Amino acid sequence: MRYRINLCYDGSAFFGWQRQNDAPTVQQALEEALSTLLKEDTDVVGAGRTDTAVNASYYVAHFDSRDGLDCADLRRRLNAILPEQIAVLGIEAVQDEFHARFGAVSRTYRYYVHRTKNPFLRSGSYLCAYPVLDFEAMNRAAQLLVGRHDFSCFEKTGADNRTSICTIAEARWSRVDDGDDTRWVFTVTADRFLRNMVRAIVGTLIEVGRGKRSPESVADLLAKGDRCAAGESVPGYALYLSDIRYQP
Amino acid sequence: MRYRINLCYDGSAFFGWQRQNDAPTVQQALEEALSTLLKEDTDVVGAGRTDTAVNASYYVAHFDSRDGLDCADLRRRLNAILPEQIAVLGIEAVQDEFHARFGAVSRTYRYYVHRTKNPFLRSGSYLCAYPVLDFEAMNRAAQLLVGRHDFSCFEKTGADNRTSICTIAEARWSRVDDGDDTRWVFTVTADRFLRNMVRAIVGTLIEVGRGKRSPESVADLLAKGDRCAAGESVPGYALYLSDIRYQP
Repeated sequence: MRYRINLCYDGSAFFGWQRQNDAPTVQQALEEALSTLLKEDTDVVGAGRTDTAVNASYYVAHFDSRDGLDCADLRRRLNAILPEQIAVLGIEAVQDEFHARFGAVSRTYRYYVHRTKNPFLRSGSYLCAYPVLDFEAMNRAAQLLVGRHDFSCFEKTGADNRTSICTIAEARWSRVDDGDDTRWVFTVTADRFLRNMVRAIVGTLIEVGRGKRSPESVADLLAKGDRCAAGESVPGYALYLSDIRYQP
Repeated sequence: MRYRINLCYDGSAFFGWQRQNDAPTVQQALEEALSTLLKEDTDVVGAGRTDTAVNASYYVAHFDSRDGLDCADLRRRLNAILPEQIAVLGIEAVQDEFHARFGAVSRTYRYYVHRTKNPFLRSGSYLCAYPVLDFEAMNRAAQLLVGRHDFSCFEKTGADNRTSICTIAEARWSRVDDGDDTRWVFTVTADRFLRNMVRAIVGTLIEVGRGKRSPESVADLLAKGDRCAAGESVPGYALYLSDIRYQP
């Protein structure tokens, strides 16, 4: 029987989702906890990699096990033994055809920035204290990314994907007013993402906001496909995988 | 010339506000930064102690220095050299009579709790996963604390204050709906607080919420003044000094 598991994690303690030989990862923590509770070696298939320190406010994985697991009880017991950086939101039995990675039709990432030093935002948002940051210009540049394009210019150099073509459905900055301070969030949804792509896009858009490049220059970047011509990547701790959609 | 400095800090890296011989504190960090920038030894007087790990979303201190400091420039330079856990919100010249500690007429603390495991709330809110937590009962108990009382029963044992009498102006639990999750916050305002008092009150009110003691029993606690009869203190990392008022 196949089970779907929805979870969230604070990435600060992990070297990303994907199991590694010599560094703690979310997949490893989850597989170890499940194997302990189910008393059998259990592999978990996740919706995709996330980089070191990157968070997921929503993540989907699946695993196969015996029929008739008590999902609510398993969730409670998993939350009790998983580290405090990982919380299981729900578990449910699904059809055998469900696949957390290959079945996903879109993923959404969010990147948070704030503008003035704030001790309470620093761990999950990126401080952009530049005197000028023109979000209107950044949104004009972001609009040029929407659609089906070759995103080689935002791909980590050395990656060997078969293709660098992705379709971005949405890319925009919006203001988040929460209590004492203002954050801005960049929301981007696509069918797939290349390694390092969101952080390279955000870094480039911030250079647009600072006036270091024009909004229109982003179209040239896409056309030329040269990673060195794009902006520097921003840090991973302010990035959140926040939604994954499947075929109904 | 006397200067007032408003600041905030994440207490997780500090052994409270008050300077100690052998442990990092907020007062020490601020005095060192000010002394460096002003090129003279500068003492800072704070509004009061805070315990290890306790945060301040608003804190007030004062210091004396030469006339005519450029306050906006000093604020910027302080923020650049202070650790990321401390942010200066503002600096202004004030009358010589202003005193950050003795001039304060009320202080407000907030204590945050959440009900289900949440990786993104864990560092600044206390997880109360008890099956039942009756906030209505907790608010009835909190109402009994309002007014002028001897709060010995909530004072850290071994403290040697002249008096344990405080006047609480407000004490209530309210719901905070922020995004994906719900937190509850206990807000308490008084003319003064004893050591450990807020954390002991919150711990006692949580026992009321769990049904371990009745709301009315809080009146007995106050009357008897026995610290051992009150509830256990909750951890400091979810406590925020959030307002300090002065005579106009």
